[in-house]
Amino acid sequence: MMTSMESEQLHKVRHSLAHLLAAAVLEEDKNAKLGVGPVIENGFYYDILTSKPVSQTDLLKIEQKMRSLAKKNLAFVRSELSVAQAKEMFASQPFKIELINDIETKGTTAMDESLKQAGKGIVSVYATGAFSDLCQGPHVENTKDIARDAFRLTKIAGAYWRGSEKNPMLTRIYGVAFATKEELDAYLKQQEEAAKRDHRKIGKELGLFTIIDEIGPGLPLFYPKGALLRTLVENYIGELQKKSGYHPIWIPHVTKGELYRISGHLEKFDALYPPMELKDEASYYLKPMNCPHFMMLYKSAPHSYRELPLRWTSTTTNYRYEKSGELSGLTRVRALTQDDCHVFATPEQIEKEIALMLAMIQAAYRAFGFADFWVRISTHDPAHPENYIGDKAVWKQSEATLEKLIRSKKWKHEIGTGEAAFYGPKLDFMFRDAIGREWQLSTIQLDMNLPERFALEYTDKDGVKKRPIVIHRAILGSTERFLGILIEHFAGAFPLWLAPEQAWVMPIGKSHKKYAGEVLKLLSAHGIRAQLKDEDATIGKKIREGEQQKIPYMLIIGDKEVKSQSVAVRTKGADKGALKTKKLLAQLHMEIEKKK
Amino acid sequence: MMTSMESEQLHKVRHSLAHLLAAAVLEEDKNAKLGVGPVIENGFYYDILTSKPVSQTDLLKIEQKMRSLAKKNLAFVRSELSVAQAKEMFASQPFKIELINDIETKGTTAMDESLKQAGKGIVSVYATGAFSDLCQGPHVENTKDIARDAFRLTKIAGAYWRGSEKNPMLTRIYGVAFATKEELDAYLKQQEEAAKRDHRKIGKELGLFTIIDEIGPGLPLFYPKGALLRTLVENYIGELQKKSGYHPIWIPHVTKGELYRISGHLEKFDALYPPMELKDEASYYLKPMNCPHFMMLYKSAPHSYRELPLRWTSTTTNYRYEKSGELSGLTRVRALTQDDCHVFATPEQIEKEIALMLAMIQAAYRAFGFADFWVRISTHDPAHPENYIGDKAVWKQSEATLEKLIRSKKWKHEIGTGEAAFYGPKLDFMFRDAIGREWQLSTIQLDMNLPERFALEYTDKDGVKKRPIVIHRAILGSTERFLGILIEHFAGAFPLWLAPEQAWVMPIGKSHKKYAGEVLKLLSAHGIRAQLKDEDATIGKKIREGEQQKIPYMLIIGDKEVKSQSVAVRTKGADKGALKTKKLLAQLHMEIEKKK
Repeated sequence: MMTSMESEQLHKVRHSLAHLLAAAVLEEDKNAKLGVGPVIENGFYYDILTSKPVSQTDLLKIEQKMRSLAKKNLAFVRSELSVAQAKEMFASQPFKIELINDIETKGTTAMDESLKQAGKGIVSVYATGAFSDLCQGPHVENTKDIARDAFRLTKIAGAYWRGSEKNPMLTRIYGVAFATKEELDAYLKQQEEAAKRDHRKIGKELGLFTIIDEIGPGLPLFYPKGALLRTLVENYIGELQKKSGYHPIWIPHVTKGELYRISGHLEKFDALYPPMELKDEASYYLKPMNCPHFMMLYKSAPHSYRELPLRWTSTTTNYRYEKSGELSGLTRVRALTQDDCHVFATPEQIEKEIALMLAMIQAAYRAFGFADFWVRISTHDPAHPENYIGDKAVWKQSEATLEKLIRSKKWKHEIGTGEAAFYGPKLDFMFRDAIGREWQLSTIQLDMNLPERFALEYTDKDGVKKRPIVIHRAILGSTERFLGILIEHFAGAFPLWLAPEQAWVMPIGKSHKKYAGEVLKLLSAHGIRAQLKDEDATIGKKIREGEQQKIPYMLIIGDKEVKSQSVAVRTKGADKGALKTKKLLAQLHMEIEKKK
Repeated sequence: MMTSMESEQLHKVRHSLAHLLAAAVLEEDKNAKLGVGPVIENGFYYDILTSKPVSQTDLLKIEQKMRSLAKKNLAFVRSELSVAQAKEMFASQPFKIELINDIETKGTTAMDESLKQAGKGIVSVYATGAFSDLCQGPHVENTKDIARDAFRLTKIAGAYWRGSEKNPMLTRIYGVAFATKEELDAYLKQQEEAAKRDHRKIGKELGLFTIIDEIGPGLPLFYPKGALLRTLVENYIGELQKKSGYHPIWIPHVTKGELYRISGHLEKFDALYPPMELKDEASYYLKPMNCPHFMMLYKSAPHSYRELPLRWTSTTTNYRYEKSGELSGLTRVRALTQDDCHVFATPEQIEKEIALMLAMIQAAYRAFGFADFWVRISTHDPAHPENYIGDKAVWKQSEATLEKLIRSKKWKHEIGTGEAAFYGPKLDFMFRDAIGREWQLSTIQLDMNLPERFALEYTDKDGVKKRPIVIHRAILGSTERFLGILIEHFAGAFPLWLAPEQAWVMPIGKSHKKYAGEVLKLLSAHGIRAQLKDEDATIGKKIREGEQQKIPYMLIIGDKEVKSQSVAVRTKGADKGALKTKKLLAQLHMEIEKKK
């Protein structure tokens, strides 16, 4: 969410609101025991052990109390106490005492970044009116710095003290806060819209996918309609790649750990699933990324300069053991299918290859109707050349190439100096969806590290063996995440070429069924994904079901249509009148072809 | 390999030849120490610690000696000795002594089936002339029962005594033996032909796939041409299924163990990869089969009789930890991609569904050029109805249906009474390849067990919840194994529609390159997978390379062809003269379409 305020000041506002929240709760409930109250994305929360349950309606009262407190123009006053003084001050707050003990013994509480203390034995405290809290700060100077109409308490959740089931369950009260009322309203509206578009909700309504307890979190299964959507998206990319001279390879999803010892992932990659340990052989791993497999396949045969650039691709699933708390529908999964490409090239070929990739990304975004995006160009930090590997000339040339190519496309972009990986510069594509949220999609990454680690070679014109450059590239990122974004961007009403069901043929009465069947056959024969809805239900009910199922074309057939060999077209929520079937087919095909 | 002799008699011949082999070696090498000599597929071997290395040329001499012994019309005479007597008889044979000790203590040697003894303390011995061997038998009565021109010693290998690296390495001499010389010759010819067609050899020559040490045995990786072959095969089946009203679903390759607790695989399935053990969650497994995932996806939503039959399919990889010694190229792998289908149906729908499956199998075999096959119909054992679960009426009806449908196709078949699984009858398709070897391919299996274990339901017309029947079905079996068979059946010279490279356009000189480029463009624009071979090499060299690469169409272009806007066609090893490009395209398309 973009805001008009400097992020540092907004952080102070949110942190200060967390204190006001605790103060407000304490005024009503003298015996409430305070946990911690950090700043989070878009707002803040406070964990509190209350004497009686807090309800959603209580939030309004607490919010009002926070506004009253803020109205008093109270200063946030910092003081530093000894541990003994702090323990005296917080004698009635057992969780705070626990934190003070931690500060005493470890110099930090380790649970709350904001409570990290400068030195052992010194505890900082912020006071606001009658309320004091153990806190490292920083805060706004005075509650008048807080826009009282730009925050809102949003929800209540349960949270174990310090995240452990062994500890008491506290009440977590969440709030959001912005610089202005307008920004708060925009955020709340976006949230409301996002909830309507939630791909988990729509995925269920449209019968696209499900997650099953006995199989596991983060491992969605796709019903036929969802599987078809996957295929449509993946095949589109596949066709685009074929046209661009990319060649699919096939790699297994498991490997000996040896592969990741060579690549370095065994030490560095956090989200590896644990190994499958065998008695008579080395341990096997599920692959969390494809690069090492690609490198080994390249290495398994000799290569000549004549073969380069070698553009290899594979749409294949990777496995990452993400924390279960971080999983979310399709957008954060444990099995992610990437449209992964690796181009093996000479340094001279980089420009042409990147240009080809940009053209493919452009074509794909146009096909999917993704108009609003910008590019982050991550380059090296000139102040620290020692942080990077590879040929300096290649760095210089390729960074200049990336910038030149993006400029020539006239795409919005940002240069992230010092944000390159140690092994090469990078492009990231940020897509802004229908309700203004940003999603990272495509990536292009130059790599001078893996070719070195795997000692990749090609024989050049002069007979000398040289190292190729590797360029990693994904357009969709992952099929699963892309589908999640796609569902939310279109709120389930996909462009015609992507709709799993493109048309419903709906006879009004029994006497219309025969002709409806003929229309269905005609549509199917012309490659339209159509269904016959001839069950005994009113046409009104069928239309409502079609709207709910986001069917692009509902083709209603009554006496008039049978007589005139036409269909009454309902599309995008409106009746468009009768159309001869031949014209209908032409219209459908034109709309489908628009993606090209 | 088919033979004219009863398998029991042939087993005796082979076993007796193993004895003659040991006797022949001992005649030359008095100090040789004998291990064991069992019967194996097509022949026998004997493991022997010889005084000096045995070479391939020695085999001929040993073979001659075996023939001389056989010519003597020696009887095989069985006697039973006490352990003490046996130890005395085999005092100079330490391995035999070891076996006798085992018989003394355990009643069996556990290493050699043929040495299993009836009772503790009794050792049976077979004498043939001067030679005696510790042996349970049975043997031929006399060496005259052995056709002396129907066996051959084939190869030598090293083998640790009792398979353990801690023991001495013995020399294993292999032989093959049949009832007649004709059968031996046919077998040797088949072996020679099989070696030429070995898919591992051809796979390497054509650049289709490779197996990489650091990734692991049984886990092939596919180069672009091999990946394309996979896709062509899988897409053919995909299209066939689409036409037949099958719907792809998508399932993850991992699952919590809980799924296999429900299905029963956790206890019963041997080849599971070991679990990935997590601290904070249940263990995860790689899926070794798809059925449980399909069952759970069905179960995750309510179903009405109106939806049935529900034909779900997924081309997805399973993982089976086969012993490394049993792995072989593509035909026995650890990651196998199945064209798996599960049809959920009412009992009344079985006939129509099986008929549809048979039609699909027939279409596929025709497309792949697999003409010679037969079907095994596995039915229940009427003597033991207690061994089977499910409705008896369904068993009766479905077994009759299977037989009726196969008969109506006029396909060769065999009825395997008592060979059904406990949960339903089955069809297996046995394909005989170009050199007479049999491969099991397609399977259709009725299942009344999994629907029960997963408590699957549909709501019938009468509002009552009922259990569907599940029909498992695979046409290819697995993509990997099918490709292995395909490569060997065609010796790499695939039908045009399956050839990864369908045509090479080959200009003879520099002045022909421009027109050759135009021909390539034309072919590519018409969907022909063509390559331009315009490197500076003689046309003779290019043709040899094309033959070696099994390129179906080589299109040679010289002055004459440029002038007449044609190409000189070389196909199936012969020059077919010049053809206008338009005619060529028509011919190519006709040949490709033949698969339909």
